[in-house]
Amino acid sequence: MIFTSKIIPRYVETDQMGIVHHSVYAIWYEQARTEYFNSIGIRYDEIEKSGIITPLIELNCNYKKPAYYNQEIYIKTKLIELTPATFTVEYNIYDKDEELINIGVTKLVWADAKNFKITNLKRRNFEMYKKLEQLL
Amino acid sequence: MIFTSKIIPRYVETDQMGIVHHSVYAIWYEQARTEYFNSIGIRYDEIEKSGIITPLIELNCNYKKPAYYNQEIYIKTKLIELTPATFTVEYNIYDKDEELINIGVTKLVWADAKNFKITNLKRRNFEMYKKLEQLL
Amino acid sequence: MIFTSKIIPRYVETDQMGIVHHSVYAIWYEQARTEYFNSIGIRYDEIEKSGIITPLIELNCNYKKPAYYNQEIYIKTKLIELTPATFTVEYNIYDKDEELINIGVTKLVWADAKNFKITNLKRRNFEMYKKLEQLL
Amino acid sequence: MIFTSKIIPRYVETDQMGIVHHSVYAIWYEQARTEYFNSIGIRYDEIEKSGIITPLIELNCNYKKPAYYNQEIYIKTKLIELTPATFTVEYNIYDKDEELINIGVTKLVWADAKNFKITNLKRRNFEMYKKLEQLL
Repeated sequence: MIFTSKIIPRYVETDQMGIVHHSVYAIWYEQARTEYFNSIGIRYDEIEKSGIITPLIELNCNYKKPAYYNQEIYIKTKLIELTPATFTVEYNIYDKDEELINIGVTKLVWADAKNFKITNLKRRNFEMYKKLEQLL
Repeated sequence: MIFTSKIIPRYVETDQMGIVHHSVYAIWYEQARTEYFNSIGIRYDEIEKSGIITPLIELNCNYKKPAYYNQEIYIKTKLIELTPATFTVEYNIYDKDEELINIGVTKLVWADAKNFKITNLKRRNFEMYKKLEQLL
Repeated sequence: MIFTSKIIPRYVETDQMGIVHHSVYAIWYEQARTEYFNSIGIRYDEIEKSGIITPLIELNCNYKKPAYYNQEIYIKTKLIELTPATFTVEYNIYDKDEELINIGVTKLVWADAKNFKITNLKRRNFEMYKKLEQLL
Repeated sequence: MIFTSKIIPRYVETDQMGIVHHSVYAIWYEQARTEYFNSIGIRYDEIEKSGIITPLIELNCNYKKPAYYNQEIYIKTKLIELTPATFTVEYNIYDKDEELINIGVTKLVWADAKNFKITNLKRRNFEMYKKLEQLL
């Protein structure tokens, strides 16, 4: 399943080159991931309350064209890998002319909130694991 | 006591006007406050570990001149009010030519980390309270 | 005229107290201001292209209750003062239970993009000035 | 040549997991890159004034261990590739116990500030190109 988020870049997200700063894309990926999960009824804030956190362990970004203040962009988000210990999400960002401007991949782990150690999501929350599996 | 912090604005902190974005100053105040407290042996991270947090309740900033990427600025930080429930800190920011570019004031509360309710610092940590009192 | 923006706090906007960091509110004010202006057909990005910038000179924030990740908030934005040289905007932020959590005021100047000197908006862009005047 | 930067994580850089948010590392890389260049007399702000900008086109980060508020980290920065059109920099981040916590790589292009098109640094600023070449 692919989910599309719309984001309008904020003024603060620009830098003195007049474009959105490259560090902002990881923040957009995160917002897109939250919305993607929200859309299938998996709320990140509730995952955390259940004692599971998802620290990020890998981030890869390719920047093809700039994004600009007040010019909407669209993020197409897709879960591309799921294991009991990790999950990997891919993001394709388009500008309003449907040009691909950025590609990102993030890999995260399912970890225990108490000690940051990897946890087995399949055992810990089988229902959620199954729901995520259907996104692949 | 006045404590001076030196900060070199980061590229990401600029916006498309070519100056440091106004939201960054609150972050600099916070860094200056941390350094100020560190300098007298009061570490914020240890305060938190002892169960006390310090949420901010008021922020006032006056912007007189811009700050620029890679051009150092100096923050003169001063505790201006201390009560068992709150503390207020003032910041004067100067550029390298010693021109005053920004004035900020922040008011924070001493609160319990468990429930965010105001706590009485004087009773809770008398030693730290006395140390802070000497800064006035 | 009051304009309402809806924002869902991002994970990155939280801090280790588990609440949205106080520096984020100025960014939300800015987003709300952009949406407010967009809604009446005044686009900030086009203002800048016409050679006018709007540096912020005063920021005041009162924090009443925290905001949380993935829990929507609503910003009610209102132009409260307009002069040929400056404009002042007020923001009231509510959580989803309609509780007031934050009040902010920002004062900005109309300035020339070339030299950052104050410009007379009424003379420079009479049509836009009149449009803004109607918001009061 | 390897250059070492020391950074003390800011409170705002933490998130509700109690660790530094993953998007902050790209900002630290940028600060380290600025300091690295400053250290050999190449100032980024002056490069820009000469009409050359350096948009980032690739970012890769591996997160091994968390970083914490007010606990210093050290970034070892190294130019690993230089062409007339691009340059690539690697960052190894260590905590105060000298444990490797993060590895990053950024690839940037030399571009013309007027049109964002790739420029030939060797032809455009031969002296700077030679200086950078000696870092390899």
